[in-house]
Amino acid sequence: MTTCSVTFQPKNTTLSVPSGTLIYEAAQEAGLHLNMPCGGQGRCGRCAVLVDDAGQNGSGPVRRRSTLRLSPADVAAGYALACQTVIQGDVQITIPPQEKIERRLTTDRTVADLVLPFDYDPIRQQSLQACFVQLEPPSMDDQTDDWSRLARSLRREHGFDPITPALSTLRKLGKVLREADWQVTAILEQDDESGPARLVDLLPGDRTERLLGAAIDIGTTSNVVYVVDLLTGRILAQAVDYNGQVVRGEDVISRIIYAGKNGNGRDGLGELQALVLGTLNRLLVRAAHRIKAEPSDIYRATVAGNSTMIHLFLGLQPESIRLSPFITGVNQPPPLRAGDVGLAIHPNATVDCLPGVASYVGADISAGVVSAGLMETDKLTLFMDVGTNGEMVLGNREWLITCACSAGPAFEGAGVGDGMRATTGAIEEVWINGETFEPTGRVIGGGAPLGLCGSGLISLLAELFITGIVDRSGNIHLDLATTRTRTGDHGAEYVVAWADTTEHGRDIVITKVDIDNLLRAKAAIYAGYTVLCQSVGVELADVEQMLIGGAFGQYINIEKAVQIGLLPDLPWDRFQFLGNTSARGATLALLNRDYRQRVNAAAGMMTYLELSADNSFYDNFMSALFLPHTEIERFPSVAEVLR
Amino acid sequence: MTTCSVTFQPKNTTLSVPSGTLIYEAAQEAGLHLNMPCGGQGRCGRCAVLVDDAGQNGSGPVRRRSTLRLSPADVAAGYALACQTVIQGDVQITIPPQEKIERRLTTDRTVADLVLPFDYDPIRQQSLQACFVQLEPPSMDDQTDDWSRLARSLRREHGFDPITPALSTLRKLGKVLREADWQVTAILEQDDESGPARLVDLLPGDRTERLLGAAIDIGTTSNVVYVVDLLTGRILAQAVDYNGQVVRGEDVISRIIYAGKNGNGRDGLGELQALVLGTLNRLLVRAAHRIKAEPSDIYRATVAGNSTMIHLFLGLQPESIRLSPFITGVNQPPPLRAGDVGLAIHPNATVDCLPGVASYVGADISAGVVSAGLMETDKLTLFMDVGTNGEMVLGNREWLITCACSAGPAFEGAGVGDGMRATTGAIEEVWINGETFEPTGRVIGGGAPLGLCGSGLISLLAELFITGIVDRSGNIHLDLATTRTRTGDHGAEYVVAWADTTEHGRDIVITKVDIDNLLRAKAAIYAGYTVLCQSVGVELADVEQMLIGGAFGQYINIEKAVQIGLLPDLPWDRFQFLGNTSARGATLALLNRDYRQRVNAAAGMMTYLELSADNSFYDNFMSALFLPHTEIERFPSVAEVLR
Repeated sequence: MTTCSVTFQPKNTTLSVPSGTLIYEAAQEAGLHLNMPCGGQGRCGRCAVLVDDAGQNGSGPVRRRSTLRLSPADVAAGYALACQTVIQGDVQITIPPQEKIERRLTTDRTVADLVLPFDYDPIRQQSLQACFVQLEPPSMDDQTDDWSRLARSLRREHGFDPITPALSTLRKLGKVLREADWQVTAILEQDDESGPARLVDLLPGDRTERLLGAAIDIGTTSNVVYVVDLLTGRILAQAVDYNGQVVRGEDVISRIIYAGKNGNGRDGLGELQALVLGTLNRLLVRAAHRIKAEPSDIYRATVAGNSTMIHLFLGLQPESIRLSPFITGVNQPPPLRAGDVGLAIHPNATVDCLPGVASYVGADISAGVVSAGLMETDKLTLFMDVGTNGEMVLGNREWLITCACSAGPAFEGAGVGDGMRATTGAIEEVWINGETFEPTGRVIGGGAPLGLCGSGLISLLAELFITGIVDRSGNIHLDLATTRTRTGDHGAEYVVAWADTTEHGRDIVITKVDIDNLLRAKAAIYAGYTVLCQSVGVELADVEQMLIGGAFGQYINIEKAVQIGLLPDLPWDRFQFLGNTSARGATLALLNRDYRQRVNAAAGMMTYLELSADNSFYDNFMSALFLPHTEIERFPSVAEVLR
Repeated sequence: MTTCSVTFQPKNTTLSVPSGTLIYEAAQEAGLHLNMPCGGQGRCGRCAVLVDDAGQNGSGPVRRRSTLRLSPADVAAGYALACQTVIQGDVQITIPPQEKIERRLTTDRTVADLVLPFDYDPIRQQSLQACFVQLEPPSMDDQTDDWSRLARSLRREHGFDPITPALSTLRKLGKVLREADWQVTAILEQDDESGPARLVDLLPGDRTERLLGAAIDIGTTSNVVYVVDLLTGRILAQAVDYNGQVVRGEDVISRIIYAGKNGNGRDGLGELQALVLGTLNRLLVRAAHRIKAEPSDIYRATVAGNSTMIHLFLGLQPESIRLSPFITGVNQPPPLRAGDVGLAIHPNATVDCLPGVASYVGADISAGVVSAGLMETDKLTLFMDVGTNGEMVLGNREWLITCACSAGPAFEGAGVGDGMRATTGAIEEVWINGETFEPTGRVIGGGAPLGLCGSGLISLLAELFITGIVDRSGNIHLDLATTRTRTGDHGAEYVVAWADTTEHGRDIVITKVDIDNLLRAKAAIYAGYTVLCQSVGVELADVEQMLIGGAFGQYINIEKAVQIGLLPDLPWDRFQFLGNTSARGATLALLNRDYRQRVNAAAGMMTYLELSADNSFYDNFMSALFLPHTEIERFPSVAEVLR
């Protein structure tokens, strides 16, 4: 096998690799960072690098397998996708500045004020207890061993029996008891009120002033940690950040593919697991430090997330989630020890992963259903959590049916040329003048725009449609009296912002290709809840409340979302945006054993409708690929506006 | 602080140490081996090294803190105890050849034929099960997750419900199921017949041909591992070796002191834990390889040992065992995972440490009581386990009382000048001609003698007494018509073997000091069972059977042991030697849940008599410091011989 010498610029790092190595593999070996939001499938085009003397048709030192996401001009200039290009000779490669993930996440600022739907009674509802005991010191008349002496006090004074100690607690038992002069605080965990208890930790003196737990939501894009005082039920601190896995794929499918990349010293699963643990552990440190605590002071964590995220968090290979018949390894992981999992709370602490329903309806939805109150309502409710995937649940406290549709990350700004996340520089709302076709908009942070985030895209598409720039099929009219519509590299496009007004000095546009992506995303979601209704024989109009969870929902404009046919045309007062229902559900389950059971009940109660096996989903999807829908009569308020 | 240069010979290793460093610390830092059977207390004299130009009274490069175990001639020659001598200048030190622990242990040859006291029924009695299942592969009609699919089969076909999987098993679940075409063997553990089960491991295909467990006995001196087929109840392999901790102390007290040596980069407890785990893990490999298995094929271990050994095995600081009021950290450790403990069987396997009773009556005695059948007998039984400590139990299936006396290691060959363990070269039996006072003897291995082992010492002392060389107080008569008795460095002594007949070319002797040690050891044991009998108001003569466990017992001559007053003067048919009752008890507990419960019951049933708080023990001890006893009428058969 021939060896090739590769030099990466601007770091001027040179290394030797065997002929046939992918550029991104060489970069990884050189320790250089390359974003790969699609997980190395050549779909996103974000890992483009500039190859010196790249040659054409494989004649040069590299061979491009795919140039799908590159324009002919890019290819001519020497750009190649690092994940799709093989090194076959000595070469110099320049890595462009990598897009930096902005740290402005709205929920990392202040602590959420969680209003509990129950009166909090830590003794009856909480599995963790901090119990102070004063022991009688041993004597020749009472030679009881240290452990039995402690267990006896905890039984007599607090009613715990039997109690099992963790090995590491036994190892420090004698020292803590004697140094604390036999006055100690036992951290005990008990799954049900009269069951066996577990000694999680033993602290010197009286440490019953607070008792920390963590509620964790592992989103595909964002991770959230709440640190909760289990004695009062109050959230004391929170921290939010992007899931470190984002650089290895933007959606669950990309992550699953990346997790499957193994051998030759690579361990895709291990890498993704380490990335998410890295993020969560940093968040735990950050949140704990805000209240002058350490992560090891946290004695229990309840975790929600979609099925793929939970698999990756636990180091379970998620491959079968992606392949028909779409099977998870485990929907309900057993209670685990933080030390085994690698979560940086107290190593003996229980990590309680909430139960999922199926490959694409995970614990985030079970938790969401409980926190949205579906288990208590008599109203016919449609609950939706739109993130990278769209999951929806229809029903009430008697019955629940659920499905998932891969909306794709279009509403999170990916898969759209000038799409971006909802951070500084994103256009989050657009209005178009119906006569001049000139847009005005609002930019997050107030500066010059960089691109369009999800709510901006919804708003823009609705405006384009309402003002007649775009027809019901999503085609852009090029014959209007405006320079805003034109033909670009990817066909017809509308210019949202001219180069001289943008942060990066390039035009911000929406193309026909982008619109098609948005149409597919909204059609998938519309088809999803339509099929759910049809499957139980109810009309969309019968839905009494529509509850929308996920960060996505918080910023969208209902009117615009209805106009493009993303949301059904219901009276606006039936819509309610609930924010992060998954993190909220994890908090309720952390605080209250009954609510923990309720999450199990919710997961068990949901009937899962597999859409990939459903022809009516496909029909509904096709019909929804229009603005707002093939059958305009389904959207009377939109028809009204159009008139 | 001054730095000193130390050169160790014969390895010619030079290193720098701060002034004030102990020689053994310097040797340890240099990676050189020094035996320290007494744990560095200056008691045993075995760590003597030769110091060049040692000087006298602290004037040279070293300062001797204690020379208790060195003769004036040794000191003059430059010998110093490594554990008691401080370096204060540049020096060259020669480490003499270290006594090698011989590997001839009689029980490492063949597999013990264990006759079970019950009909073995693995399904009802065994907590571990190997269950083969053929699963229906998943389909679009049955999207059950992998884990629930497996659990469903195990519930339907084998009745286990609920089952909790280990995280590492979940991690390989999907791969094993698919690669094995959904035909797998589940290794399940269930503490009681209808309780929850735990999935310990999952193997591809049908692996129900055998199922391995290990019974482990951690003695202060010897460690034993039996590998048992849990499907048949047969011991398939065994391995025995000295406890690696022996170099750090011969008795439990020395080990406890060593375990407390911490700080300055030293971790006495960690070192002792690593030593015993090292021994056990080597034994597990050796035993497993004998049956073409690996230690990781072993799915459960049941462990017996005295309380100090169990503490050190688990890394629990044993300090409070040694200090009044003599408290263990834990008598009944919870079930632990092998991976947490550091035992090299399957990491998910349970390590079940049997329960002890008190600081000096450990799990070895609880196990011994069950294997000796005390829980079933109506006969008044005295059970004794004489090792480095002497533990005894009196009672029957209705009641049990127990005590321990620190016999010391005299009967294991330590604390006696020419004492040694029962290995090649040990004189194991001695006869003395009553007229010439000339001895004959039997040497283990048949070659020239090296020293005296426990049974040899008992036999020798009895013969010295019966032939009148030694009086009832243990004084050696120096006025006899023989050159065998004489005054040596340590006072009066009897020469058992002349230098020209021994392996090392030195006389083998027993001194008055040695005899005093033996008298104290046997007096402690005699006083122990005498006090036990008195405490419940029975006579020694009422004891219907006397069961003797421990390796010690197997080789001693009852007649000789009675003659020195170690065993009571009962009809010989009441004595029974049972061998390693601790390892046997661990095996029974490993095989049979009922027997495991019985060990708990035994531990719970034993009333512990603390001898250090008992004046009558001291009186009895003092009365027994004679041959055979102050009151010769307690030993009518001996009185008869003397007449």
